[in-house]
Amino acid sequence: MTEPTSWVEGASGSLFDVDNLPYGVFSHDDEEPRVGVRIGDLVLDLAPVAAGEMLEVAHAFEATDLNPLMAMGKPAWSSVRRWVTSLLTDEAERPLVEPMLVPVDEVTMHLPVTVADYVDFYCSLDHAGNVGKIFRPDAEPLLPNWRHLPVGYHGRAGTVVVSGTQVRRPSGQRKPPTADAPTYGASERLDIEAELGFVVGAPSELGHQVPVEAFTDHVFGVVPLNDWSARDIQAWEYVPLGPFLGKSFATSVAAWVTPLEALEPARVDLPGQEPEPLDYLRVGPGAGYDIDFEVELNGEVVARPPYASMYWSPAQMLAHLTVNGASLRVGDLFASGTVSGPRPDQRGSFLELSWGGKEPFTAGGRERAFLEDGDTVTIRATAPGRLGRIALGEVTGNVVPAR
Amino acid sequence: MTEPTSWVEGASGSLFDVDNLPYGVFSHDDEEPRVGVRIGDLVLDLAPVAAGEMLEVAHAFEATDLNPLMAMGKPAWSSVRRWVTSLLTDEAERPLVEPMLVPVDEVTMHLPVTVADYVDFYCSLDHAGNVGKIFRPDAEPLLPNWRHLPVGYHGRAGTVVVSGTQVRRPSGQRKPPTADAPTYGASERLDIEAELGFVVGAPSELGHQVPVEAFTDHVFGVVPLNDWSARDIQAWEYVPLGPFLGKSFATSVAAWVTPLEALEPARVDLPGQEPEPLDYLRVGPGAGYDIDFEVELNGEVVARPPYASMYWSPAQMLAHLTVNGASLRVGDLFASGTVSGPRPDQRGSFLELSWGGKEPFTAGGRERAFLEDGDTVTIRATAPGRLGRIALGEVTGNVVPAR
Repeated sequence: MTEPTSWVEGASGSLFDVDNLPYGVFSHDDEEPRVGVRIGDLVLDLAPVAAGEMLEVAHAFEATDLNPLMAMGKPAWSSVRRWVTSLLTDEAERPLVEPMLVPVDEVTMHLPVTVADYVDFYCSLDHAGNVGKIFRPDAEPLLPNWRHLPVGYHGRAGTVVVSGTQVRRPSGQRKPPTADAPTYGASERLDIEAELGFVVGAPSELGHQVPVEAFTDHVFGVVPLNDWSARDIQAWEYVPLGPFLGKSFATSVAAWVTPLEALEPARVDLPGQEPEPLDYLRVGPGAGYDIDFEVELNGEVVARPPYASMYWSPAQMLAHLTVNGASLRVGDLFASGTVSGPRPDQRGSFLELSWGGKEPFTAGGRERAFLEDGDTVTIRATAPGRLGRIALGEVTGNVVPAR
Repeated sequence: MTEPTSWVEGASGSLFDVDNLPYGVFSHDDEEPRVGVRIGDLVLDLAPVAAGEMLEVAHAFEATDLNPLMAMGKPAWSSVRRWVTSLLTDEAERPLVEPMLVPVDEVTMHLPVTVADYVDFYCSLDHAGNVGKIFRPDAEPLLPNWRHLPVGYHGRAGTVVVSGTQVRRPSGQRKPPTADAPTYGASERLDIEAELGFVVGAPSELGHQVPVEAFTDHVFGVVPLNDWSARDIQAWEYVPLGPFLGKSFATSVAAWVTPLEALEPARVDLPGQEPEPLDYLRVGPGAGYDIDFEVELNGEVVARPPYASMYWSPAQMLAHLTVNGASLRVGDLFASGTVSGPRPDQRGSFLELSWGGKEPFTAGGRERAFLEDGDTVTIRATAPGRLGRIALGEVTGNVVPAR
């Protein structure tokens, strides 16, 4: 079969060709936010096109988040994607569709999903090993449970913000190991974590497990995610109940949600799991994703973390998350944890890139460790698509001083 | 001033007199759920009364959760409470209001609040000390941060269920310390935690702290809460990121939310904090609440935890939760952590009552430790009110076997 080509100027061969088609929520001029799909450097305003064709899905495109579209379930996700593809490739649709294209630099992007629960995992072997060595230099870097289950915890859903939102440096309690008592003040070890977020579209029932095989039935798409972290606050607070204020001040996600279907060509085998996981966590070939991340600090690439190196797959994260019968809701978000590869320039946090601040890295022509006020961090990712490489939405944030 | 007396039969002198007036969401016959207030053994159907008086608040009473009412803010909470009090005490209102009273045993109660984020704290010194001694017998029971900040973590908002919902025994990974590897199976150490939950009504802005003084501006009311816990799952998973699946299968809350205003007469001083907390956590007299809990196992009281013994106050929990600039949303829920007093019969979990299963307690005429299938646990609480004692809504749940 010959691949149909898009009639949209500049789309063919770009990172946002018809094999990508991420969804987002945009507004133009003073109009209400609504659902759009990205093609090339343009956003297609889906609601009027669907309304013009008298399609029932139009109401989902008029929403201010992707939740109603996601709630329609996997068969609808596929049929909507086929419909959008035909709109953008069939010359006959052009007269109707072309007036509904808006340049992406003329729109404001909004948080694409109203987040129900947010769970953050810890699935990179290299990241977990690095953090273990940095925080517990005299002990075994990996804790005993790490190779048996994808370790995770709940984060704050209410402070998930869209790419571009300024991030205020948090204040709180921190206590250096050498101090007698904690003090209050602005975090001095503000960090990033380059992650991949998975957005749940189809819910599940309380008391029922979601098996690894049902992963693509429930997960709608992915977003690059920056899990901003205040390492000094986190180090003091986290025993025994885990990270709390060190993370809850902001988590940034990309404005564009790439459908899982667009990532089918990016599926790869996991690097290998030893020991073999328990039955409910067992996956076959192609459980991983070959996605290349880039971390940019003030416009300069400082790391290139490879998602293909992740130890636990997203299907395993989802199966684990629900093994106790916990239900899923439309808009649940779960993230991979920091993506770090085996090489020093593949580390997805400044904590690792600077080895706990002790081995600064060079950026902007000088030595750097943790985030400074005014820094801008942008995380980008690309993957093999059906026609060429596709770009996932970027996630960017600028650090503003503590209040 | 002479206190007005309610004309509602059986209300005066009961635990649900006009000094209480908790809100809930009920349905009657096959009608849509809506907001009611409890008086004696009756529920007042607020929507038609408010609509009859052409009050704007009627739309909030027609909602299927308390969120719109809570979103109206503290001045509205007070004026609605005054209006409801006048309805139930003024004989002139009786002809209009009496037909809108429904016996509480004829209604179905629903989850009163759509929960935004759920945070669970760990504020009882006795509980934290007991758990430390049970889990880490050779170490200092309290971790270094415990007396400096109210330790907390995010729980799963999507599995907060209303009192009466059956609780299915969760399955998952657990590894006894003596085993070589984890196994999959139903939890063998299912437990309860008797807690008090605080429901946030008024939101706050991202990047802004909520000081201890603003506690009553943001918190609408309280609910007894059972933080069901699978101790074996929790023990294996919780390092280093905290409890996850050991808690996320279900958290039960009372159907009735007692307004904070009703608890004004229950305010007491905290037992005392040493060392003195940092400035942002400093509170004056009356920061605690004198609320007596009862834990019933299959109809028999097995513990009477005193809330007045809690180390950290709810105003401190809220100030800490937002000290990093994390925003609050309407419907946020934060809980105190297990309420345990200094005496053995004041412990709010079976883990403590049975000292890790090693010292069973007696209930139903035999030795008991963790929960068995078929067990019903009910947590009740009362407090001094303006006219006499008031009852907080009870929270009950029945354990059903693993699937």
